[in-house]
Amino acid sequence: MKAEIITIGDEILIGQIVDTNSAHIAQELNKIGVSVHQITSVEDEHNHILTTLKEAYLRADVIIITGGLGPTKDDITKKVLCKFLEDTLVLDEAVLRHVEDIFAKYVNSPISNINRDQALIPSKSIALYNKYGTAPGLWMKKGEKVFVAMPGVPFEMKALMEHEVIPKIIKEFERPFIYHKTIRTYGLGESAIAARIEDWENKLPKHIKLAYLPSFGTVRLRLSGKGKDEAILKSSIDQEFEKIFPILKDIISDVNGENEDITITIRGLLNKKNKFLSVAESCTGGELATKFTKNPGSSTCFKGGIVAYATKSKEDILGVSHAVIEKNSVVSAKVAEEMAKNSQRIFRSDYAISTTGNAGPDKGDSDAEVGTVFIGIATPKRVFSEEFNLGKNREQVVKKAVNKALELLLKELLSK
Amino acid sequence: MKAEIITIGDEILIGQIVDTNSAHIAQELNKIGVSVHQITSVEDEHNHILTTLKEAYLRADVIIITGGLGPTKDDITKKVLCKFLEDTLVLDEAVLRHVEDIFAKYVNSPISNINRDQALIPSKSIALYNKYGTAPGLWMKKGEKVFVAMPGVPFEMKALMEHEVIPKIIKEFERPFIYHKTIRTYGLGESAIAARIEDWENKLPKHIKLAYLPSFGTVRLRLSGKGKDEAILKSSIDQEFEKIFPILKDIISDVNGENEDITITIRGLLNKKNKFLSVAESCTGGELATKFTKNPGSSTCFKGGIVAYATKSKEDILGVSHAVIEKNSVVSAKVAEEMAKNSQRIFRSDYAISTTGNAGPDKGDSDAEVGTVFIGIATPKRVFSEEFNLGKNREQVVKKAVNKALELLLKELLSK
Repeated sequence: MKAEIITIGDEILIGQIVDTNSAHIAQELNKIGVSVHQITSVEDEHNHILTTLKEAYLRADVIIITGGLGPTKDDITKKVLCKFLEDTLVLDEAVLRHVEDIFAKYVNSPISNINRDQALIPSKSIALYNKYGTAPGLWMKKGEKVFVAMPGVPFEMKALMEHEVIPKIIKEFERPFIYHKTIRTYGLGESAIAARIEDWENKLPKHIKLAYLPSFGTVRLRLSGKGKDEAILKSSIDQEFEKIFPILKDIISDVNGENEDITITIRGLLNKKNKFLSVAESCTGGELATKFTKNPGSSTCFKGGIVAYATKSKEDILGVSHAVIEKNSVVSAKVAEEMAKNSQRIFRSDYAISTTGNAGPDKGDSDAEVGTVFIGIATPKRVFSEEFNLGKNREQVVKKAVNKALELLLKELLSK
Repeated sequence: MKAEIITIGDEILIGQIVDTNSAHIAQELNKIGVSVHQITSVEDEHNHILTTLKEAYLRADVIIITGGLGPTKDDITKKVLCKFLEDTLVLDEAVLRHVEDIFAKYVNSPISNINRDQALIPSKSIALYNKYGTAPGLWMKKGEKVFVAMPGVPFEMKALMEHEVIPKIIKEFERPFIYHKTIRTYGLGESAIAARIEDWENKLPKHIKLAYLPSFGTVRLRLSGKGKDEAILKSSIDQEFEKIFPILKDIISDVNGENEDITITIRGLLNKKNKFLSVAESCTGGELATKFTKNPGSSTCFKGGIVAYATKSKEDILGVSHAVIEKNSVVSAKVAEEMAKNSQRIFRSDYAISTTGNAGPDKGDSDAEVGTVFIGIATPKRVFSEEFNLGKNREQVVKKAVNKALELLLKELLSK
């Protein structure tokens, strides 16, 4: 069973927005055994959209469309769908009531005809309830093939996927069983790992695929397979997993690396120990704290953090001694260690992470080379730091520093 | 002149990674007058890639390809390009020296044959220098049409675009002149704005396009046009701009809204006044600080911040009085104001922003409904706060709170 995703809207093609919707839709479809074979982004242009629909119709069984359902003139998806399906727009009373309801509850300005037009849908389509917005999702059929249209606003689309689209696909289509298994490694690059596991990789059965998923210092390796018999599929992937494990044993940091978000792994370990974390950030500028607070439930392990961007703030707020900064430079092991230790004390936390470095593009308050970053870790037993050289690209330096810090903490939590 | 982008790799189609490369490439191409008409993501599968190349060849003049150039077995882009161009792979000595050089300088493990194969390129292609990695970019021609292949690693691709691809396109193609003008509005939704400017929008000349770019509380309106005569194009867009201005005057927050990043606008205003900012965050968990430190040069206006996630931390570290929290609840106007005032005092800043609220999904330390957020602003003259109800979706509540906070500060800085 094949799916394709079509995103409609000039915003994507002029690079104004990044298409995060497709990744979400692809993830959700993959989870239920539906493979996405192509994602196509096209401009708000009638004929181009029409051609894209026709091509996708020939290749795929389910076509998921986002964008172009808004109330403004540049939103033409419904019109093109009518043309493609030889249909006309009709008023859906239930949708109209929903639109009026949203306006009465949440919107300050009076409802206009433009808003009411949101309730016009192709006569042969089924309206899908959009909990968070005025544009309904649409479920349409052409022969055996299904077309689904959703608004491009990410959180409206996500709710529609969860409550309407996925349940309907599960109900209407028979799908193969899908199984993934992922390990996270650290410390070796993609090609060095590839060289190590070459023999094993060459012998992988055809129905099992290996993917390398590198991301700043860690590489996740994912085995995935698809099949009709769940038990056979699982056991064949588990067997391959058993074979790769001894080859990579020294660099595996997380055997169940399914979760891309390392902070969730860390939270699990802290919760188990009933311990709390705080941070003290300079060059990472708040990103470490953001990583931890992004997911709900973070208050079970995260107390908070201090972003001491200016050198003076490191003294005033974090209590790093002026003498230590003078003697060692603000970008130094000693300062990283004091930052971690003081964060631990100020927040009364058990573990603390600190970062101090120069992310560039120019030299800042210190003489440190661009890319030099010290990461400090305070644990209930000890305080230590490590120095890294993370390249010349500011954005990369910050991202890598955040990832190195998380890796160091993870390693510490995993060690006895 | 038309361009298309093709991204190759299963990671995108299984939703493992978000395709940020295409947005960047599209932005850079648009800047030099090259329109992107389609973006296509396809799996690592020989025939599918081949078909996609053939289709793009029929529609576009320049086809930019990313991904599938890595050293591992799942990277097959070069092979498919050879098939499509009827070419074979040959060793490029300069690229080989570069690969060996990178290994000697940065990599701990010895160079392998897999790494050396990075220097194999189609015989009719030109290798483009990849400053940050081992896989070269490739510049190929088929008839009049140009195919460019780049690695999918974002920062390698970005450097290749800047130093190699864009200069070569400028040199080889004649392009139309492009002109954009953008204003940023706040406080009114997309459809309310559309209703207000309907008459004007209907009369827009055909060569000028209007785009609505909504983003959490602000909507940017962008007029863009393309033409051969720079002066005529500019004056026609400027004229339309003059007409729309009086209609939207009360809701325009930034006349030169080209810059999507509101923190850069804020930094400009703070720099002009020679004033400094600090933050105190609860529910936004570090994202406000991250927004400010993301761009280089932030130390000219940003002193730092405190992420006081736990209620206790608000007392211990931010010095919010226990009595105030007891009396008003931790999610309250009073606490937001104390947080802002104390951040201003602790960091010795001139302006401070604070956030306290419940981002959900459950009720936290307070009785506040999910979505309730108070934002506090301290200026050299006064301290105030505003209450917002930002919906039920955690991710949205945080994003909207950050944006509301930035808007409030911007408004304050713009007011006399």
